[in-house]
Amino acid sequence: MTKNTLSQYCKDKIQLIDKALSQYIPEQNYPPIIYESMRYSLFAGGKRLRPIMLMAAGDAVGKDGTSFLPVACGLEMIHTYSLIHDDLPVMDNDDYRRGKLTNHKVYGDGIAILAGDGLLTAAFETMLSQTNVEPQVLITVVKEIAAAAGPAGMVGGQVVDLESEGKTIDAKTLEFMHQAKTGALFKAALRAGAMLAGANQEQLRALSCYADQFGLAFQITDDILDVTGTQEKIGKPVGSDIRNHKVTYVTLHTLEGAKQLAHQAVNSALCNLNDFGPKAETLRQLVNHLINREA
Amino acid sequence: MTKNTLSQYCKDKIQLIDKALSQYIPEQNYPPIIYESMRYSLFAGGKRLRPIMLMAAGDAVGKDGTSFLPVACGLEMIHTYSLIHDDLPVMDNDDYRRGKLTNHKVYGDGIAILAGDGLLTAAFETMLSQTNVEPQVLITVVKEIAAAAGPAGMVGGQVVDLESEGKTIDAKTLEFMHQAKTGALFKAALRAGAMLAGANQEQLRALSCYADQFGLAFQITDDILDVTGTQEKIGKPVGSDIRNHKVTYVTLHTLEGAKQLAHQAVNSALCNLNDFGPKAETLRQLVNHLINREA
Repeated sequence: MTKNTLSQYCKDKIQLIDKALSQYIPEQNYPPIIYESMRYSLFAGGKRLRPIMLMAAGDAVGKDGTSFLPVACGLEMIHTYSLIHDDLPVMDNDDYRRGKLTNHKVYGDGIAILAGDGLLTAAFETMLSQTNVEPQVLITVVKEIAAAAGPAGMVGGQVVDLESEGKTIDAKTLEFMHQAKTGALFKAALRAGAMLAGANQEQLRALSCYADQFGLAFQITDDILDVTGTQEKIGKPVGSDIRNHKVTYVTLHTLEGAKQLAHQAVNSALCNLNDFGPKAETLRQLVNHLINREA
Repeated sequence: MTKNTLSQYCKDKIQLIDKALSQYIPEQNYPPIIYESMRYSLFAGGKRLRPIMLMAAGDAVGKDGTSFLPVACGLEMIHTYSLIHDDLPVMDNDDYRRGKLTNHKVYGDGIAILAGDGLLTAAFETMLSQTNVEPQVLITVVKEIAAAAGPAGMVGGQVVDLESEGKTIDAKTLEFMHQAKTGALFKAALRAGAMLAGANQEQLRALSCYADQFGLAFQITDDILDVTGTQEKIGKPVGSDIRNHKVTYVTLHTLEGAKQLAHQAVNSALCNLNDFGPKAETLRQLVNHLINREA
């Protein structure tokens, strides 16, 4: 699969995901302001990485990943809610995301909080509307996604992020923070796709390891881009980590060290796909693309 | 069942609920601050009305309501999250709740938002850990609870509440607001208990109607207590509705008119329990107690 093939794969899936998201969170609804606000962030140019990963994991196990659209869309809603809340003035206080004003800058803090709450709640309603799988498998999957998004996962990661602002944290705390804040939901996405597609224990184990390394590579690349990227491409001011005295993989390991760590994580991720053959080609391309991304 | 019997019923259930909640959201966990913050509000003296209603509905259908503890506790977590977010400065800006400082006054706005997010997410993980029911029934129940808590339910009600502050709203908008903000989750609690216990269609319909009238009576009584209550008993300043120029059942219908409406709702609620016999005694006592409550 060439980069063009990956880009076509993503384009196709994004079309399906966007259409479905637009049905789950419809335009005409009451009260209008909350639907408008949720849709503003839901359709603000997200790359749909988590739903695509879920689908690609389903493909790798031999099922059509697009048949798990409800669970996939739920993941995107959870991701979007977390961005809205993270951007709030009392959190990271960001005015821009992906080159657009953040939700609270447009709708105010109150509605932004509620839009996040609404998306998080709607995510569970949406995921539980998945029909073509064994009910007990769906329960296991959605429960795992909840755990990954909750206080021991994404929420916990954001807590550590918030609490460590302006403080020097050690490498171990940094790793927990990223694993919880970003890695846990990536991993849940991969595992969800695998479990929904009926993966066996060995496949599930391999895809879990792939997910861990993918998450690590993703975060290191993020830290690198904050130094080497341009505002035009990443859609937010660069160098904000340094200005905010944040500890990152770059500040801990230097730019060259961070690049090496990222390459190592990518190689390790790829290793775990060996037994899947050509069906895992999208997962291979995704992690390769990740390290070469500019945004 | 006398009032003392109801009070003993509630005492027994609260003990079970509190013990289970304390296991679901344990004290010793990382990051400690988020668990402390979630527990602060979770154990701030809540009456556990929603989980008790779920259990009482299960009893009414002939099952032991306490066997649905995970779903019941999930409802309490959802209720608690909504209080934390509603109290925030950018929402209702309340410093006290049940006589104690609100979550954000103790932990700051950022952690309070995350404590709410954490409880909402943990609620779904907890509910989906319910084991002694058909998986498909559990899915239906949790999906309905999500819908009741989401943008078309509780979140939507809070949006209307927020948007109508300082404005004059009509009776229809007021009714939507309360139905969505409070009534929807009451109804979901009742219906969840009934469905988990294997209610037939007729029983489910009757309990749904009971729930609608219960929710209405609850809200009217709330509005009445804001005028006739004391801060000592209701745990927050009285008269805040009038000071905030809020439209309430009292401002719309006078105090006497509101009392009549409340009685009418209680009678209608009781009517729907006729076919359940003695097994619905707790539900009868609950709605009777409601209208005589002082807090």
